[in-house]
Parts: sequence; structure tokens; C-alpha cells
Amino acid sequence: MSGVFVAFEGGEGTGKSTQIALAAAWARELGRTVVETREPGGTALGVELRGLVLDPDGQVTPRAEALIYAADRAHHVDTVIVPALERGDVVLTDRYVDSTLAYQGAGRGISDASTLTSWATGGLLPHLTVLLDLPPALGLARAGQRARLDRLESASLAFHETVRERFRELAAAEPERYLVLDAARLVDDLARDVQDALTALL
Amino acid sequence: MSGVFVAFEGGEGTGKSTQIALAAAWARELGRTVVETREPGGTALGVELRGLVLDPDGQVTPRAEALIYAADRAHHVDTVIVPALERGDVVLTDRYVDSTLAYQGAGRGISDASTLTSWATGGLLPHLTVLLDLPPALGLARAGQRARLDRLESASLAFHETVRERFRELAAAEPERYLVLDAARLVDDLARDVQDALTALL
Repeated sequence: MSGVFVAFEGGEGTGKSTQIALAAAWARELGRTVVETREPGGTALGVELRGLVLDPDGQVTPRAEALIYAADRAHHVDTVIVPALERGDVVLTDRYVDSTLAYQGAGRGISDASTLTSWATGGLLPHLTVLLDLPPALGLARAGQRARLDRLESASLAFHETVRERFRELAAAEPERYLVLDAARLVDDLARDVQDALTALL
Repeated sequence: MSGVFVAFEGGEGTGKSTQIALAAAWARELGRTVVETREPGGTALGVELRGLVLDPDGQVTPRAEALIYAADRAHHVDTVIVPALERGDVVLTDRYVDSTLAYQGAGRGISDASTLTSWATGGLLPHLTVLLDLPPALGLARAGQRARLDRLESASLAFHETVRERFRELAAAEPERYLVLDAARLVDDLARDVQDALTALL
């Protein structure tokens, strides 16, 4: 597969979608075809699944939630990511396996999220994962300026602290595959760091 | 858990729901509380998930399908089956893990359906599995008398032959947990055999 696969990870309100939009515009100016996507919800099926999990009135048990995210991911990998990489495109995804490991694994106590995730992806990992790191209190305040909070965003601050720590541990374990950025910095400065890392891959 | 857990398995049109209704009526006459349920779709979440998988216009990849069924099952086990067994009820389910192993495992070539299934159920197995066995050509003709065929029912006959063989292999591997019945027999005769097996468990 000749494409380049980059995941953007981090808590709520860390600016993932802004950085993806800037990176996509930059790569398109270089003449690359860019696929911007997201998990959960990167496919029509995924949108339906995402609605089931994020509904604030829903009663989804933790194991069911982990499996629903895995289903979304398997479908997303098979029908969006792999075909794009085979065409040689640049794929930028808003969340991927690290979000599962951080949210379901650390946050909700599903110990074998890693096995499930690797089954769902067929072992496909990004060439680079950009972690936008921010104290949850700040990120949640930013996210709160958007529309109604979904179920993940309305969970407790302690939960989000655990998630943040898990993201940082994942990055520390494989530093060659991660770019960890302080998401409190200026948007344009962050975008420049992302571009530098992408330049090495393109 | 003091309840009794019985799964009814078999292809389309083998009469599972009829036998469940008869077994439920019989157990209630004995004074037992009976929970009749089904997979997929035994919970509100499951109904939504079932709709996503069975939609004839849907494009669900095999791995995504297996994970969606697993999500339904995890939710069903955690919120319906286990609570009922803890109350001491009789739980009769229309399909359970064997359907996954037969349809996703043998039928669609997902080799590790067994691992996924056991993760989803937390290892919970029925006390008894009633397999209603019938040549698929006959079962599909019966099922065709019902409303619009769903995606599973419109798959090829060869697929259903493979599924039937897989059901029979599962039963042969653990005969003490299975009651295999020739579903071409009279409904009342089958019901009596089911009652005899249940009597030993109640």
C-alpha cells in the first residue's frame, strides 16, 4: 500500500479536527489526494453505530460499547482506509485505535481492548499518530462551547484524566510512531509541527 | 445463578420460535417464570443492531458483522440473561453462540469467531442447546412463506448447507449439552422431547 496513514488522537476539545483540516489543505497544495475521516462514524454504518453509543439516554454496557466501536472500525478499515492507502492517498483520521485503548481500556476497565482492536483492524497501524495533549479541564471547557455534550463528554473529569494519562503512556511506549504536541499552543504553530512530521513521510 | 438457560438453534424455517413458545407455556404451567428472548435483537440496542446487519441494502463487511453480533450478545447477556438466571428464571433464547459459530464461523470464513464469542458472553454457556435440524431446502421453503426475506435468508443454498453441517458438528462435539431433533417431525412430538429434556434440568 503506497499511501500515508496518519491518526490524530487526544481528548475532547484538543483541536483534532482543526489540525486535520489544516494538514489536509497543506497536503492538497502539495498535489496529494487526501481522505479526511473519523472514528467512530467514518462510514454510513459507522454513523448509525456512533448514534447508538453516544446517545446520552442510551444504556450500553461496557463490553457492548467496546464491540460496537470495534465493528465501526473493522468496517472503516475495510471500506475506507485500506482502499485509500492502496490508491496512494493520504488518510487523516480523527481518532483510531489509541482512542479505544484510552477510553475503553483505561477509562472503563475493559482489559483486553488491545486484542479486540487488533482483531478489528487486521493489525493495520498508522505511519504516524499525532497526539494533541491538553489538561482535560481545559479541553472540556473548549468542547462545552459546542452543542449538547454527548455521553463521553459528560463523564467525570477523573475519567478524562485517566484517559489523558493512557494516551501519554501509549505515545511514550512507541515514540517513533508518535508526535506528541502541547495542544495549548497556537493553532498555526501546531500545524507547522504536523507539516514537518508529514514532510518526512510524503 | 439458580436459573435454567436453554438455547434453541437451527437454520431458517426449522421451527425454533414455535418450540420456544410451546416450551415456555409448558414451564409456566409448572409455575416457573420464563423469559423468552432472542439473538440478535433481544434488547432495545439489539433491535437497532439487528436492523443494521439484516438490512438487505446494507453493505456490512464480514468482520464488522461478526463484531455487531458480538455487541448485541454482550449487551443481551449482561442486561437480560444473567439478571434472569440470578432471579432463578427459565431463559429460552432463539439463537445464541452456536448461530454465530455456524453462520459467521463456517459460513463466512471468520476463523476466530469462537474467541470473539466467548469474549462477548464472558464464557456463559446454556445448560442445554436444542438443535432443530432440517435440510436447508425445506427450511428455506418454510421461511419463504413469511414476509420479505432478510439478507441471511437470501444467501445461497450452499451457504445454508455449510451452516447446517457446522451446527451438527458443534452438537456432535459436546453431546451432553445438546438435544438434536429432526425438525421435520410433528410439532407436538418435538415439543414432548423438549419437555423431557427440560424436566431433567428443572
